[in-house]
Amino acid sequence: MQTPKMVEPVPNEIYQYSIISALMDGVASHGIPISSLLAHGDHGLGTFRNMVGEMIILDSTVYQMKSDGSIVPITSPAEVITPFGVITKFEPTQRVKACISGKEDLAKLLKGLLPGARNHFLSMRIDGTFKKIHARTAGGQEHPREGMVSVAGRQRTYTFEGAKGTIFGFRSPEYVMGINVAGEHMHFISEDRLRGGHVLGFETEGEVEVSVSMASRFHMELPTGDEEFNEAALVQDSQGIASVEG
Amino acid sequence: MQTPKMVEPVPNEIYQYSIISALMDGVASHGIPISSLLAHGDHGLGTFRNMVGEMIILDSTVYQMKSDGSIVPITSPAEVITPFGVITKFEPTQRVKACISGKEDLAKLLKGLLPGARNHFLSMRIDGTFKKIHARTAGGQEHPREGMVSVAGRQRTYTFEGAKGTIFGFRSPEYVMGINVAGEHMHFISEDRLRGGHVLGFETEGEVEVSVSMASRFHMELPTGDEEFNEAALVQDSQGIASVEG
Repeated sequence: MQTPKMVEPVPNEIYQYSIISALMDGVASHGIPISSLLAHGDHGLGTFRNMVGEMIILDSTVYQMKSDGSIVPITSPAEVITPFGVITKFEPTQRVKACISGKEDLAKLLKGLLPGARNHFLSMRIDGTFKKIHARTAGGQEHPREGMVSVAGRQRTYTFEGAKGTIFGFRSPEYVMGINVAGEHMHFISEDRLRGGHVLGFETEGEVEVSVSMASRFHMELPTGDEEFNEAALVQDSQGIASVEG
Repeated sequence: MQTPKMVEPVPNEIYQYSIISALMDGVASHGIPISSLLAHGDHGLGTFRNMVGEMIILDSTVYQMKSDGSIVPITSPAEVITPFGVITKFEPTQRVKACISGKEDLAKLLKGLLPGARNHFLSMRIDGTFKKIHARTAGGQEHPREGMVSVAGRQRTYTFEGAKGTIFGFRSPEYVMGINVAGEHMHFISEDRLRGGHVLGFETEGEVEVSVSMASRFHMELPTGDEEFNEAALVQDSQGIASVEG
């Protein structure tokens, strides 16, 4: 276990543990306790050891969304490991109500809201009712070093209709592809905490509340003493990342 | 001027302002005061406003190495702007004496010294006498947004023979290409502070002292309120970066 971090996280800085290319290469046996991730913020996403399910963090509460459809709140974050997670102390600077027909429509909305953030990171939260959410949950690796494309081949996909809930995620600039996912990367959880997953597509039911902040500071922490990470080729596979994280 | 940072930098974390792709796109009119960079460490490299010369930071002293061959210590770091800089609070964990025949030989040495750092950042300092150092200094942009490949077309190159001095630089993992320079990126300054530049190649004269540390934490700060940065395409140009920074 790590010593608790005494320094308060700066609002809207993005902290990331490991890189998405490591997951692509199947580096998911080790990681940091989720409590260490929480020292850097209150809203985020990621995955769990061996890529078992999708992680969403809302208001400092962490949920594990599994491929069997079950959702588990993580009540002992010091005892649960994440091999990849992204988190921010979310303090939105923009709040609007909007109807959103899909990911492209969201991209346009974000561009209009923060025209000076074209090459920056954005954190965003969408609260409301969704006419449709197309989501997936990864079931996990069948063996160590199984890569994400292979794991995603067995993912469960769901379509939730009329679900009330929250999407949280990040929009990352193109130049971080390989380190993180370029473009939008969002997870969803329903208000009753019974449905959720990695968002593949969505459409709102009427107006929802969109909260956004720009991030100009990015902190990355790499796995240490982790042979899997050290041995991984970590070659940028933009197409592969887009196929499993798009 | 910025408020002095109260938090002490953590040893061997790497802090970077802006990204190398921004320089490639000629984003070099604005930046942060060098004093802000120094708040994050004591050893580093970078450039100056409009890419006028090469920056090296040794033991918290900053030097500007210009293409006319002159070298200026920066005595008022709060008043001088950098559009791109990388710095660390350098506390080497490995120190060896070695003869190094060139960049490839150095890469082999580093691999042997820190086999667990294949996918990490390294900071390194080489002190001693160099049989030959092939170096360049960028003269600066002729107009705003002039890209680095074009600026480098007018760079001055020098070969220093038998120069006693110090190389400082970083080795960055492949997956940060575009954000920083993948591989080694090193600057040199002579002990008499009369010669220096961006290292294109080198060979030591007998044994030199090599000090190295691994970095698993990387902090990136992006320019804000900078129209040049916001408008830049920032498309990854690996070949271009390798040609001007290799």
